Amino acid sequence: MRTVYVIGIGAGDPQHLTLQAVAAMNRVDVFFTIDKGEDKSDLARLRTELLDRHVTRSHRVVAAGDPERDRSAAPGRYEEAVVDWQERRESIYERMIADELDPDGCGAFLVWGDPAVYDGTLRILERIAGRGAVTFRVESIPGISSVQALAAQHRVALNRTGRPFAVTTGRRLAGEGLPAGIDDVVVMLDARNAFASLTDTDIDIYWGAYVGTADEVLVHGDLQQVKDEIVRIRAEWRERKGWIMDTYLLRRRDG
Amino acid sequence: MRTVYVIGIGAGDPQHLTLQAVAAMNRVDVFFTIDKGEDKSDLARLRTELLDRHVTRSHRVVAAGDPERDRSAAPGRYEEAVVDWQERRESIYERMIADELDPDGCGAFLVWGDPAVYDGTLRILERIAGRGAVTFRVESIPGISSVQALAAQHRVALNRTGRPFAVTTGRRLAGEGLPAGIDDVVVMLDARNAFASLTDTDIDIYWGAYVGTADEVLVHGDLQQVKDEIVRIRAEWRERKGWIMDTYLLRRRDG
Repeated sequence: MRTVYVIGIGAGDPQHLTLQAVAAMNRVDVFFTIDKGEDKSDLARLRTELLDRHVTRSHRVVAAGDPERDRSAAPGRYEEAVVDWQERRESIYERMIADELDPDGCGAFLVWGDPAVYDGTLRILERIAGRGAVTFRVESIPGISSVQALAAQHRVALNRTGRPFAVTTGRRLAGEGLPAGIDDVVVMLDARNAFASLTDTDIDIYWGAYVGTADEVLVHGDLQQVKDEIVRIRAEWRERKGWIMDTYLLRRRDG
Repeated sequence: MRTVYVIGIGAGDPQHLTLQAVAAMNRVDVFFTIDKGEDKSDLARLRTELLDRHVTRSHRVVAAGDPERDRSAAPGRYEEAVVDWQERRESIYERMIADELDPDGCGAFLVWGDPAVYDGTLRILERIAGRGAVTFRVESIPGISSVQALAAQHRVALNRTGRPFAVTTGRRLAGEGLPAGIDDVVVMLDARNAFASLTDTDIDIYWGAYVGTADEVLVHGDLQQVKDEIVRIRAEWRERKGWIMDTYLLRRRDG
C-alpha cells in the first residue's frame, strides 16, 4: 500500500528537525510541495535546504500550484472560506498521490511546525482517504511548532503550575477576547494586530516573529506598554520581507 | 558565564530528539539528573541511552535525590504542594550549578517532552537566578511533547479549522469540567481517571499511554463507550510497570 508521511519540520530553524523526521525523509520516493508564490520563498528555500542536507536517498519533488484562497471572507465566514480552499486542495493532493506514487510507493508533505497544530494536511488526507478513490496509509511525524519555539526563545513555560493554557487564533481573539477562565493564551495566525485592541491592563505579552531564524525579533513586556512597538515592528518587517510569521503568548498577571 | 541548558528530549521515542538538542548536548560539561527512584527507571534508561548514543564529548553526570513531594495534598492545595516541592528543588539545583560547573562551564537538564509544557525546570532556574547567589544564563531547547506524540499517533490535529484548543490537567478537569467554549481539550497529569466522571454524551476521546515507546497503547472512540476500557487498561499497565504516563484529547462533536 502507498504511504503518505506528513512531516513537521519545525518553525524555521533547520536544527528543529527531529531524528525521526530525518529517518522518515529518507524513506520517501516523492516529496509533494505546494507552490505558495514568491512571498514565502524563504520558507521554500528552507525546505530545499533540508532535503539537500539530510536526504541521501534518490527522490523526486513534485510541485503543484496552490488554489486561490478567499482572504477577504466576511467575519463569521472564515471557516467556510478555509473549508472551500481545503476542498480544492483535496483534489490536487488526491491527483498527486494517485499519479506520482507507485502502488507501494512512499510520498511526503513537509509542513511547518507540527502537523497537529494549525495545519490542515492531516484533515485533507483523511477526507481523500474517505473518498476511497486512492488507497494509502498516513503517518504523522511531530515537529517543533512555532508556539514551542516562541516559548523557548523567551525561556518561559506556556502554562503556570497546575493551570491550563489555550491556543487560539487572532480572529477568535478579536471576536471573543481571551477564552473565559484561561490566563495563558497563545495566539497564532493574527494578521490584524488583534492584541492591540485588548484594553486589559493586567496582561504581559511574549511576542516573536521569524522565531528560530536569522531574522528573529522578540518583544516582551506589559501589553499596554509594548503593543504600539509590536504593531510598528510588524509593519516594518512585513514591508521588508513581504510576509511575516509571528506568534505570541498573552499572560494575565496574578493578583 | 555559566550556561545551563534545559533540553526537551521528547515523549519517549529516542527518535524525537531534535538536531538542535543533539548539538546542545554536545556542548555540555555536566548533565544534572534527579533520581526519581526505581519506578521511573524506564525513563532514566532512555536518558542514559540518549547520552550514550549521541554525546561524543567528554562529560559528567551528576545525580541528586528528588525531594519528597506531598502527593496527598487536599483539593485546592495542589499548587501549594507543588510550589513547596519546587522550592526544595531550587536549593538542590542551585547547589549543583554552583558546585559542579566552572565559571564558564556548561550544564544541562534533560527534560521529558518540552520544557515549556508542564515542566517546572525553567521556572526553578528563573527563581535561582533571581536569588543571585550563582550567575548563569539559561537556554531552552524545545522538544516533542507528549501532547504532540499523542496527536501524531492518532493522526489528528489538536485544533479544528480556525478554532482554539486548550491543554489542562486531570485535576482541573475533575474540578471544573472542560474549559468554557473550547471543544478540543488535551488533558495531562490525570492520575485519577477524571475523564471517566464526565457525563457528556457528545465527546470523543483520543487516549494514549507510553506513546512513542514499545509499550504504546492507544484507544479512540466515543467517551461513554470506551471510558471503562481505558480505566481498565490504565489499572493493568500501572500494575505491570509500576507507573503510567498517559495523555488524552477530548473532542466535542459538532452539531
